[in-house]
Amino acid sequence: MRRKSRETRIGDILIGGSHTIPVQSMTKTDTHNVWETISEIHRLEEAGCEIVRIAIPDMEAAESISKIKKEVHIPIVCDIHFDPRLAIASIEKGADKIRLNPSNITEEGWIKKIASLAKERGIPIRVGANIGSLKQKPKSAVDALVDGVLEEVRILEGVGFSNIVISIKSSDVLVTISANEKIASLIEYPIHLGITEAGVKDDSLIKSSLGIGYLLREGIGDTIRFSITGDPVEEVKAGFTLLRSLGLRKRGLEIISCPTCGRAEIDILGLVRKTQRDFGNVVVPLKVAIMGCVVNGPGEARDADIGITGGNGVGVIFKKGKVFKTVKENSLYRVFKHELQKLVSKEEKSLNISDSFR
Amino acid sequence: MRRKSRETRIGDILIGGSHTIPVQSMTKTDTHNVWETISEIHRLEEAGCEIVRIAIPDMEAAESISKIKKEVHIPIVCDIHFDPRLAIASIEKGADKIRLNPSNITEEGWIKKIASLAKERGIPIRVGANIGSLKQKPKSAVDALVDGVLEEVRILEGVGFSNIVISIKSSDVLVTISANEKIASLIEYPIHLGITEAGVKDDSLIKSSLGIGYLLREGIGDTIRFSITGDPVEEVKAGFTLLRSLGLRKRGLEIISCPTCGRAEIDILGLVRKTQRDFGNVVVPLKVAIMGCVVNGPGEARDADIGITGGNGVGVIFKKGKVFKTVKENSLYRVFKHELQKLVSKEEKSLNISDSFR
Repeated sequence: MRRKSRETRIGDILIGGSHTIPVQSMTKTDTHNVWETISEIHRLEEAGCEIVRIAIPDMEAAESISKIKKEVHIPIVCDIHFDPRLAIASIEKGADKIRLNPSNITEEGWIKKIASLAKERGIPIRVGANIGSLKQKPKSAVDALVDGVLEEVRILEGVGFSNIVISIKSSDVLVTISANEKIASLIEYPIHLGITEAGVKDDSLIKSSLGIGYLLREGIGDTIRFSITGDPVEEVKAGFTLLRSLGLRKRGLEIISCPTCGRAEIDILGLVRKTQRDFGNVVVPLKVAIMGCVVNGPGEARDADIGITGGNGVGVIFKKGKVFKTVKENSLYRVFKHELQKLVSKEEKSLNISDSFR
Repeated sequence: MRRKSRETRIGDILIGGSHTIPVQSMTKTDTHNVWETISEIHRLEEAGCEIVRIAIPDMEAAESISKIKKEVHIPIVCDIHFDPRLAIASIEKGADKIRLNPSNITEEGWIKKIASLAKERGIPIRVGANIGSLKQKPKSAVDALVDGVLEEVRILEGVGFSNIVISIKSSDVLVTISANEKIASLIEYPIHLGITEAGVKDDSLIKSSLGIGYLLREGIGDTIRFSITGDPVEEVKAGFTLLRSLGLRKRGLEIISCPTCGRAEIDILGLVRKTQRDFGNVVVPLKVAIMGCVVNGPGEARDADIGITGGNGVGVIFKKGKVFKTVKENSLYRVFKHELQKLVSKEEKSLNISDSFR
């Protein structure tokens, strides 16, 4: 059962309550390079990114927000550390949400100013604790993170502001899970999930899927971000794959493929790579199976919309567990590609998705 | 709290009870190519693989078991479908465990023969249900999988055999989690965890980490395998990373690195890649941080044994959150590598690990 959280709006995206869980990312470009940043956001949009965060380290970066906003189609979250003037400037320039910790701002006057401007514009503030690695033992680390967030929340509530999103991110997955479980039971603000400093892609996919996925299955979490040292497009792709595994979102092809073993007689990995190359931008949800053995393949992938397997010179295309066509092995991919393309077009038509979406 | 499961032995590895959770993999070579298979197992051993499965599709493959056994250092599990004679031959040739479903063998005489031979040799039989994708709705899919495994168990128990390991793998992560939760509460045999047909590396890391990791945090699971369409060494690496995230195993470097953002002033990804290249084979556990900003880096990675950050021509090496050395940015990696090498050697000495282990 999903935790009941308060609903909030980030640009034209609603989070919390029973709303769809959007996938976020963050640009890695220098925000001063406006066009580079815009082009990265366009790549993220194409991958399905629904909310993007940008770093605002100084006034020049804040100045660029309105230019960026004009060129992109998803809400912009501005990431601010310490300097309250950057928060004010970001909101004035059109930020759809800001991320800052009021505890870093010592003067209450500034906090009031930020809160009242955010209130006026109807934009939320994300507060959080994401201490990469705490010195404390896991148990007290959890308490330290939860107390940290409660303190940030208290400061904002103290100046009458409650349009809050919270996040608790640790590089320690178990600490992240426990701290989010705890905070989820204490307050009703929507929660942004992630594992901080999760490392390069492979490490992050493992740590983030465990941490974010665990919490989502428990019903906790209203928006997610995979932190990956690398291309942010990978963060978005991973987000959708995780949400699909949890039955929470559907987007693009789900490719079921066997790990191959001494029984496999066709080049599974090659076929998967070709399918990814040719259908990687498909938006409509379809389940595709690429299996290594003719005996078990079609049966094991009974619910795939389309699948292939083969061996001994023969290629088999199946649909919903039933053999649909038998072809020569060397024309297997060509025929399969054609059939899959037909399925994709049919789905796009029925979902009214134009080619320009791809 | 970890589920109490019955202890069993696979070669010289004990699983179940409160034993360490070993990481498994499966060869992708044709078992008939004995030397290719042995060489793949050697690569797996080097990556830390502790139990390896090989496919036995026919008698010739079964014949090769004793040759393979002679050259490798980890227990061999033989994967058999349908043909009971392959099971008998595999056990006779020295299999440390066999994986087969007795329900596929219609003659009770054969089942008795296999069970009594396995009993005599003291080797376990893994039974399981891993229907890639069931037609049923999740809820009944769970029941179908659980009933399937109970049936396999009942057949073996019926002939007086109880040295059983069970597995329930679906390509649907939620189904896998629910089915394992259910079976774990019904019987006390050790459980082998995995997600079947999880796809290529990225997809499998996400689905398997969620599924396997979720269950392990709940205390369920006695040995694990990541199924990846691709190099099986990746399955082993992923296994250790997941177990490390769960605090269950320690092996090699844990590299904490920030996702980089508009604030990063050094080439984080490049530094991580160099560190992986130079220290990828290290066995001793060390926590290494590679951070993008001098202001927050050392503090956010307080519990890293060693870390680096930099910017504006300056490189900083820190240990346990304290600045240890400041160097020119262009000599940062060289000095860091030297310091990390010293730490590794010290750890290896204290853990009595010789260079030959790497």
